[in-house]
Amino acid sequence: MAAEPYRLTATEALKAFNNDSLTVEDYAKSLLKRIEERDGLIKAWAYLDPTQVLEQARALDKVPKEERGPMHGVAIAVKDIIYTKGMPTQHNSPIYAGDQPEVDGGSVIMLRKAGALILGKSRTTEFAATVEGPGTANPHDTTRTPGGSSSGSGAAVADFQAPIGLGTQTGGSTIRPGSFNGIYAMKPTWNAITREGQKIYSLILDTLGLYARSVEDLELLGSVFGLKDDEVPQPPKNGVKGLKFALYKSMVWDQAGPGTQKAMQKGKELLEAHGAEVEEIELPADFDKLPDWHGCVLKCDGRPSFRPEYQIAKEKLATSLVEHVEEKHGYSRKDYLEAFDAISALRPKWDAIAEKYAAVIIPSIPDEAPAGLESTGSAVFNSWTTALHFPVVNVPGFAGSHDMPVGLSLAAPRYKDQALLAVAKEVGKVWEKEGGWSSKL
Amino acid sequence: MAAEPYRLTATEALKAFNNDSLTVEDYAKSLLKRIEERDGLIKAWAYLDPTQVLEQARALDKVPKEERGPMHGVAIAVKDIIYTKGMPTQHNSPIYAGDQPEVDGGSVIMLRKAGALILGKSRTTEFAATVEGPGTANPHDTTRTPGGSSSGSGAAVADFQAPIGLGTQTGGSTIRPGSFNGIYAMKPTWNAITREGQKIYSLILDTLGLYARSVEDLELLGSVFGLKDDEVPQPPKNGVKGLKFALYKSMVWDQAGPGTQKAMQKGKELLEAHGAEVEEIELPADFDKLPDWHGCVLKCDGRPSFRPEYQIAKEKLATSLVEHVEEKHGYSRKDYLEAFDAISALRPKWDAIAEKYAAVIIPSIPDEAPAGLESTGSAVFNSWTTALHFPVVNVPGFAGSHDMPVGLSLAAPRYKDQALLAVAKEVGKVWEKEGGWSSKL
Repeated sequence: MAAEPYRLTATEALKAFNNDSLTVEDYAKSLLKRIEERDGLIKAWAYLDPTQVLEQARALDKVPKEERGPMHGVAIAVKDIIYTKGMPTQHNSPIYAGDQPEVDGGSVIMLRKAGALILGKSRTTEFAATVEGPGTANPHDTTRTPGGSSSGSGAAVADFQAPIGLGTQTGGSTIRPGSFNGIYAMKPTWNAITREGQKIYSLILDTLGLYARSVEDLELLGSVFGLKDDEVPQPPKNGVKGLKFALYKSMVWDQAGPGTQKAMQKGKELLEAHGAEVEEIELPADFDKLPDWHGCVLKCDGRPSFRPEYQIAKEKLATSLVEHVEEKHGYSRKDYLEAFDAISALRPKWDAIAEKYAAVIIPSIPDEAPAGLESTGSAVFNSWTTALHFPVVNVPGFAGSHDMPVGLSLAAPRYKDQALLAVAKEVGKVWEKEGGWSSKL
Repeated sequence: MAAEPYRLTATEALKAFNNDSLTVEDYAKSLLKRIEERDGLIKAWAYLDPTQVLEQARALDKVPKEERGPMHGVAIAVKDIIYTKGMPTQHNSPIYAGDQPEVDGGSVIMLRKAGALILGKSRTTEFAATVEGPGTANPHDTTRTPGGSSSGSGAAVADFQAPIGLGTQTGGSTIRPGSFNGIYAMKPTWNAITREGQKIYSLILDTLGLYARSVEDLELLGSVFGLKDDEVPQPPKNGVKGLKFALYKSMVWDQAGPGTQKAMQKGKELLEAHGAEVEEIELPADFDKLPDWHGCVLKCDGRPSFRPEYQIAKEKLATSLVEHVEEKHGYSRKDYLEAFDAISALRPKWDAIAEKYAAVIIPSIPDEAPAGLESTGSAVFNSWTTALHFPVVNVPGFAGSHDMPVGLSLAAPRYKDQALLAVAKEVGKVWEKEGGWSSKL
């Protein structure tokens, strides 16, 4: 083996297991060593038991080749708001400290069946519903936030503690950490993958999120989870050459700092230099209200979602969540329905616009990861995309003024997830190579 | 005590506990005796452990009066697709036979906190997603179906084996059994009550359902679960007198049999005789497509929802659910989105129409419960109401040609749940008394 096993992407690890150059046990040991060396600093994990990991790994090594699943032996970090048998699920909430429901979330059932090695539970903000960091540090600069709420999965994948990870997104909880950590992140079409066994914040917004260090690995996860367009997309034949992109600075562009401003400009120029067409677009005026509508739906949905916890242990619940339940936001049911219905009406409008392009380029974050671990940063560039249900992939490649990673989002119409990944793969080749940022880890 | 404790409604039982005329233990014993006598015939329960019930009851009796919750001691049946600590959750699926995730659904957390006595798990069709009856019989005629998928909760409440019960509805799974069993049933506004810990069939359709033998008991459940309109509704002062109702025979009226036809006619006449106005209405032509759109969304949503079970044990999954995952229905993602978006666009239109009336009267079922326990009957009159998210209450009172119960639905705009209950209470007084059917149990 040239590289240390812990550095392998999921796809590379699969290859190594398949050609017998690596056992799952040795792979797991390499990852555990990396975790031991690094996690005191990064704090990506809410729960990880090395003995349990090695037991899983040895069991996987005993599976005959012909019975192995499509993710045989591949390690994965699971966000700690998704249920896992044999491991606690604590939601970063004192209410659920040490709690261990013996049930697997739907995504975890599929992962286990595919032969994945569940490393452990990655840190999250409380119920994936607050912006207070869970103590996790950005591996590229440990004085900065890795973003949230999928803090642990984002940081673990960037830090080579896991090749892939599960996150979730209700506002910007998958794409923001993806960008802050300089890795690929995908928010698939809403409900394209089951959310069974994933704590609810907002039914109409919550989406399972995927992390990886390569698009191939996102495709692998997508195939295990059944992500499937109406038509199998033809991969671009000449890279990005001849593809037509839209660039939408978004209705909150005034919140973009220099890192994102430069990335948007450079991302456009690079694609054009490689023969793509990039057309800057505006969206109809109604779209400008999406961030507010999203906020209304989110806060109002927090009422039914956190009412059980509020009733049993209000004093152990984050103030912001108590306020959702107590409706301190001041939104009426009427306000909620207006926002809910208005968002619904814009979904087909987005699809009609986006389907004219190979992808729509939008910002992933206001700027590189801010200093401090207290706040996970702003989701203002993501929340409207979550509301509209369409798939988004964060592609890394650019640098902020402190050389922290800045990614850009590629977006597509709903249920064009596979097509989006195929395009993201080509775009990534350009941006990762020439965007100006690469991981020093 | 005049009546046997098992015959008490929840509200009546609360009163008896409060004035010390009944202990929870004696109440539980009375219910257990009823269950023992009857359930060999009715088969309402998937799981019920008398020892566990009595332990709960004794613990509740020890709670000092000032610490008692708003449902102190009240027994409830929980549909077996909702997680409960200390009891198995089996979804009527061989895949989950004996499975016991140690977690409470959100509704169950709130029930326990309110002091409810969880009797056991009531039978459901497989994952609440098929129409094959789970062996439960209609207590009014055990050769007939109690409906489904909430078969056990509906039958148990009608049969005085529990005063109240939890169901769920994705098509007609709460309202249909309510009507077939001659009890009150409520499908609240979608997402007004958390669905946490309730197996997913369709995220955008699944709704927690409530069963009771009185509207007061539905109100009690609503208050524990946080069902709350923008404005606290003023209860009608003179019964139904002066109220204006709409009557909508629905776009599938051609499927109404004589029982429902007569009930709709008689329901109208009775309200008019008591001083209400009843105006027959039609809905715009787009509404006629709702049953088809609902079917498309339902089947397509079955793909992500049952993919985990399909992957691990396809051979143990109902054929209809295998077909959802394999997309035998032939709907494309494009078809799905068209249906999804078209339904979304009709929700505010329904609200605007319904808000002009005290309630809209619609059929609950094609006719009285059909013979045989194999099929749980047709949800054709319910599915479009589930798609539109508005609250529905089944009010019993009418009789089919075999003297089986026939109920009618009252419906309101979204988030007018409390107002709807207040109206249902007055309508129920008329229909239950003069509609021509009353329970012989």
